Amino acid sequence: MRSEDRGNEQLRPIKIETNYIKHPEGSVLVHFGDTKVICSASIEERVPPFLRNQGKGWITAEYSMLPRATEQRNIRESSKGKLTGRTVEIQRLIGRALRSVVDLDSIGERTIWIDCDVIQADGGTRTASITGAFVALVLACDQYKKNKKFSTFPITDYLAAISVGVNSEGEVLLDLDYLEDSNADVDMNIVMTGKGEFVEVQGTGEEATFSRQQLNELLDSAENGLHRLFEIQAEALGDIVNNIQSVSQSDSGE
Amino acid sequence: MRSEDRGNEQLRPIKIETNYIKHPEGSVLVHFGDTKVICSASIEERVPPFLRNQGKGWITAEYSMLPRATEQRNIRESSKGKLTGRTVEIQRLIGRALRSVVDLDSIGERTIWIDCDVIQADGGTRTASITGAFVALVLACDQYKKNKKFSTFPITDYLAAISVGVNSEGEVLLDLDYLEDSNADVDMNIVMTGKGEFVEVQGTGEEATFSRQQLNELLDSAENGLHRLFEIQAEALGDIVNNIQSVSQSDSGE
Amino acid sequence: MRSEDRGNEQLRPIKIETNYIKHPEGSVLVHFGDTKVICSASIEERVPPFLRNQGKGWITAEYSMLPRATEQRNIRESSKGKLTGRTVEIQRLIGRALRSVVDLDSIGERTIWIDCDVIQADGGTRTASITGAFVALVLACDQYKKNKKFSTFPITDYLAAISVGVNSEGEVLLDLDYLEDSNADVDMNIVMTGKGEFVEVQGTGEEATFSRQQLNELLDSAENGLHRLFEIQAEALGDIVNNIQSVSQSDSGE
Amino acid sequence: MRSEDRGNEQLRPIKIETNYIKHPEGSVLVHFGDTKVICSASIEERVPPFLRNQGKGWITAEYSMLPRATEQRNIRESSKGKLTGRTVEIQRLIGRALRSVVDLDSIGERTIWIDCDVIQADGGTRTASITGAFVALVLACDQYKKNKKFSTFPITDYLAAISVGVNSEGEVLLDLDYLEDSNADVDMNIVMTGKGEFVEVQGTGEEATFSRQQLNELLDSAENGLHRLFEIQAEALGDIVNNIQSVSQSDSGE
Amino acid sequence: MRSEDRGNEQLRPIKIETNYIKHPEGSVLVHFGDTKVICSASIEERVPPFLRNQGKGWITAEYSMLPRATEQRNIRESSKGKLTGRTVEIQRLIGRALRSVVDLDSIGERTIWIDCDVIQADGGTRTASITGAFVALVLACDQYKKNKKFSTFPITDYLAAISVGVNSEGEVLLDLDYLEDSNADVDMNIVMTGKGEFVEVQGTGEEATFSRQQLNELLDSAENGLHRLFEIQAEALGDIVNNIQSVSQSDSGE
Amino acid sequence: MRSEDRGNEQLRPIKIETNYIKHPEGSVLVHFGDTKVICSASIEERVPPFLRNQGKGWITAEYSMLPRATEQRNIRESSKGKLTGRTVEIQRLIGRALRSVVDLDSIGERTIWIDCDVIQADGGTRTASITGAFVALVLACDQYKKNKKFSTFPITDYLAAISVGVNSEGEVLLDLDYLEDSNADVDMNIVMTGKGEFVEVQGTGEEATFSRQQLNELLDSAENGLHRLFEIQAEALGDIVNNIQSVSQSDSGE
Repeated sequence: MRSEDRGNEQLRPIKIETNYIKHPEGSVLVHFGDTKVICSASIEERVPPFLRNQGKGWITAEYSMLPRATEQRNIRESSKGKLTGRTVEIQRLIGRALRSVVDLDSIGERTIWIDCDVIQADGGTRTASITGAFVALVLACDQYKKNKKFSTFPITDYLAAISVGVNSEGEVLLDLDYLEDSNADVDMNIVMTGKGEFVEVQGTGEEATFSRQQLNELLDSAENGLHRLFEIQAEALGDIVNNIQSVSQSDSGE
Repeated sequence: MRSEDRGNEQLRPIKIETNYIKHPEGSVLVHFGDTKVICSASIEERVPPFLRNQGKGWITAEYSMLPRATEQRNIRESSKGKLTGRTVEIQRLIGRALRSVVDLDSIGERTIWIDCDVIQADGGTRTASITGAFVALVLACDQYKKNKKFSTFPITDYLAAISVGVNSEGEVLLDLDYLEDSNADVDMNIVMTGKGEFVEVQGTGEEATFSRQQLNELLDSAENGLHRLFEIQAEALGDIVNNIQSVSQSDSGE
Repeated sequence: MRSEDRGNEQLRPIKIETNYIKHPEGSVLVHFGDTKVICSASIEERVPPFLRNQGKGWITAEYSMLPRATEQRNIRESSKGKLTGRTVEIQRLIGRALRSVVDLDSIGERTIWIDCDVIQADGGTRTASITGAFVALVLACDQYKKNKKFSTFPITDYLAAISVGVNSEGEVLLDLDYLEDSNADVDMNIVMTGKGEFVEVQGTGEEATFSRQQLNELLDSAENGLHRLFEIQAEALGDIVNNIQSVSQSDSGE
Repeated sequence: MRSEDRGNEQLRPIKIETNYIKHPEGSVLVHFGDTKVICSASIEERVPPFLRNQGKGWITAEYSMLPRATEQRNIRESSKGKLTGRTVEIQRLIGRALRSVVDLDSIGERTIWIDCDVIQADGGTRTASITGAFVALVLACDQYKKNKKFSTFPITDYLAAISVGVNSEGEVLLDLDYLEDSNADVDMNIVMTGKGEFVEVQGTGEEATFSRQQLNELLDSAENGLHRLFEIQAEALGDIVNNIQSVSQSDSGE
Repeated sequence: MRSEDRGNEQLRPIKIETNYIKHPEGSVLVHFGDTKVICSASIEERVPPFLRNQGKGWITAEYSMLPRATEQRNIRESSKGKLTGRTVEIQRLIGRALRSVVDLDSIGERTIWIDCDVIQADGGTRTASITGAFVALVLACDQYKKNKKFSTFPITDYLAAISVGVNSEGEVLLDLDYLEDSNADVDMNIVMTGKGEFVEVQGTGEEATFSRQQLNELLDSAENGLHRLFEIQAEALGDIVNNIQSVSQSDSGE
Repeated sequence: MRSEDRGNEQLRPIKIETNYIKHPEGSVLVHFGDTKVICSASIEERVPPFLRNQGKGWITAEYSMLPRATEQRNIRESSKGKLTGRTVEIQRLIGRALRSVVDLDSIGERTIWIDCDVIQADGGTRTASITGAFVALVLACDQYKKNKKFSTFPITDYLAAISVGVNSEGEVLLDLDYLEDSNADVDMNIVMTGKGEFVEVQGTGEEATFSRQQLNELLDSAENGLHRLFEIQAEALGDIVNNIQSVSQSDSGE
């Protein structure tokens, strides 16, 4: 039995508090159950060297956890002087995922920095980060659109992420919490757009493997959860939602 | 005129939300106006090498800001691979200050890690950190006392910190916000115990100096602010306050 | 048209030269077309701290490229003083993949270090690394089994990896070379066991997305390529193949 | 009893040897008892990035100890690959202190590097560094003034630093040596200008606290010591003293 | 007796395979017995900052060993985050040696990067690296000369390196393998040009010393070995040899 | 003409001030003309891991220059976070040289740290360091012998180092100053024992080469200079000289 009588196909309580901190162009506090992440989007008026003078922009992401976001305190990466492999993987994933729904030409020679800082962790921090960061990004773009710094709205579609897994009884679970994740035989993260196209499919069995049949069940469950996340993102954004280019197609397509 | 019609001797709105995150033994979200810091106290069952086998404990502090806690985004110290001089100074100050009101013998061979993570900055982040961290520390000690891991309550007195400064008109200001701090001729941070004894007095004039007379006015203003902070800490702690050894003397002394 | 008239479902010429260098317990030079990787397996008589006194072993992998393995010279990571995010991701993937087909209990408190050093790169360096490293690992285990340091043969199944992708015409390609990889809309790496179970499925569309239908076509193509790789591994290993526990089932299952 | 029958209000023997090494624009070897520091001032014809094109200069300080300047050998910071928190604090203090008596506009777009290298340590290395570095700085400015590279003499006042403390008997001590410093309950460093204005007041009680009354006694003792240091600096500088803008007022004021 | 009945004055089997990897402008795999090094020369169209706008070029070398090139696995320098002292010394030696036979003016504002990667080590890796790198460098220059990027051929003479040593019986040995090197009382590396002039003479006795007489015997033996290496380099280069400016003199001189 | 009418075969004024700083077991300030180096020897009661439980000791050296020891200020290696290649080479050379005249078995499981800190540089800093460090080492051993911590005196012979070079007119010069060193075609450093045996012979021609004939002239000149240095070391050491085991032979040999 999952905690709080959750069904295998059910998300944890999801909450997205917008404009959570005052300085960034866009920010949220996103909750996936007890997992809480502050996501912010900061727009900088220049691009990294490899993009200079090409008239297009870039999106890059950083991810971190407070040392005591977890049950056991972790050593700060700033004290160690380097990032762990896990952090590097997650921040590359977040950046890549968000870039897939942004028209980088239309933001001009600017960098959008996405910061995902986990203040409390209970599994799914990377999927909460992507789902929350998307909303922070839309808020930042909305501010720049209103200020006429962007001539068109650069977001081309919704984007969210969710985890799925297979537990030791072989059951497929949606949106694993920390305890479930620790005991899962297979762990999978799916990033998908509002139109239902995949951006990232990452399935891993550390001390186990999974069949083609199980892969299909995992994808089915993830797709259901992701459609629910798009609705929650839309509620959090309110009218700003109308800026997203794919909305009408997406709605009619579902 | 200060923002929101604040008088020169007046604190910003102060708020201390206890048990803000679930994993640490003690935690708060402290607000000094728009400055917001998550402070947590984590108790580890071992001491650093220089204290082993001496039967006493240690308190150490780490301080960080989210990259976009400030108006301009800062590069993460974990990305730079090293701490700035400012961060090093602040975390040494926080640790030293808290150790002055803890009986390190009575916590046994344990380390209490204090983490101060600034999620929004508007001046006074180090004084908010010390003031909030004291409450997180008391909460953690209370948990250990209730669980019989501590036989006596190790906190010997209240502790709080406040900033004072001299503006370009020569006026003494209490609890400077970021704009005031940037324009101050003299900047001073005072850490004091409930009994009114100083733990730390740090006054600096970067492109200015200050007289003995001004020093005295700054100290007077700080003392007033600090007594108000002790009251706010007491409210946040509720009954737990009765554990603090100095309380009766402190009360009768004021 | 693919280079050298290769069909979309066809692997590049694959070659595995065993015992390529003399010091390691096992080593190969693996060729996937012009991609050449020296893979070695070194057995160390101790485990990392987190595994001490548990009676089981560990497998960890490191990956590197010679600076001029590529068209443009890359700065050495030893000169930069840190690993790139790409290197970290690849070496975590290689280690995780190999651990899935090894019975870590039966190797005792030992660490097997896998080193994959790319001496010439033309796409698919991570899949060539996994495929070659598996053979080096089997050779090392065979030496330890013959020397009576291992009482049972710890490898439970075959393991290989291959890349698949979607080109800009929407065609599914197997085993992409560097030019194809640079121009692909979707890039996917699959790690699979001899029994046809997935260990790792990683699909990514950086500036593109992919449908559920395309995902299925990619997986079909990868499975075909992987079965061909298992045959090539078996040829390279000769009689040693009989040690692998799954062989009989695997053969009967295909 | 203090070593060598020193009174509580008495400085150790102070000596300032000017032009101690030949390459820097200004240099001294300063002795505070057995504490010996080589201080040099080097003028570089450019400023750090944050000051470019503003027509003004900068002063920055670095501080280090020879590994065997102390009773126990310390690991070199160059071997560790990073500076300790203590070093960072001290070099920030030295730079800030010196900047308070220099007219940065009148040195043009130049950086003055202050290097303080402790060759023998017996307490008070930071106060000896500031006191000696001031003289090295004046010597360097004098050379630039004589060479017509400076049109006006940029030093606006004398500057020196001294430590004071409270010992375990509650006595106030001036200019603590290493043994006294290790046993002091309160440790304070004061940086003051020739006119008697404070630049920096830093008082700390690590495992103790101090009252407002004690703070006043500490400041009184420090002021006496600092006036004696200004006289010693003036002797070391000889005629160059007449360049310092505040001299006449300062003399008449004492 | 030396391994494989080698005489004290005899080189190990030497082999130089040219164009070993496809991307660099020049590359070889050089064998000195069981020591195998991939040497490549990469030409970059810019110079380091200290040489800009001087119309001349630079040659710089990097050296590394695969972790399991040796009997015991070494930790990668990229994992440690810094180079060992041994690596730094060797790469400085290789660069310095090669620069002595190149007319840096005639290569224009370009940097030639020499990469020496030891894939199997059995003593003499630095002398094999220099000897092989010289051939890779000539190949790269030949390509640039043929492509008209160089107007004259910049190599002024042959260059090779060899080790000599004194064993515990006091015998002089040429071209020491790992076992001989580990047991030698004196170890010497000589770099010489085709004309018989020394570029580098480095003799060391770690726990022993050597007389002037022994030094002379070591130099005699090294000179013989080096002349044999020049012949092997000439065979590997074939017709390209005629480009080297000293050839005619060198031939007539021997 | 050399500065101060020095002959080509003449040393600069050499001075060795013993016990220059108070904390180390042995220390000197050595002058080679304007080159001044503080050398200290510190004895630590443990050995590095690779020597544990072997009953013998170790000698290791560190070398550094004050930032403004040179005409142009250098960036501190502690600020850069890593050692330059030049520093690494020099400190390895110093350690190796000193170990050649110490009986490491007779010092027990101890490490002797040699610190060479250049306070003023004018060429020959490495040879001055070795020559001075030898004296500091003898002083430290003498203290340990007197305190009965050493049962025998562990120094087996004198040790000194000198530079020689060939200038652009082809003349051989002894003990080059900075200007001569910068313009030399060939630069050579010789480390020799009191008995006249070589420990280290390092000759380099960066943009030049040297013949066997020139090598012999360089060695002749160096030997003369080194015998003069042994006399100066003996004067500085006074009676302590009698401890050095080779003294009688060495004396009779000169």
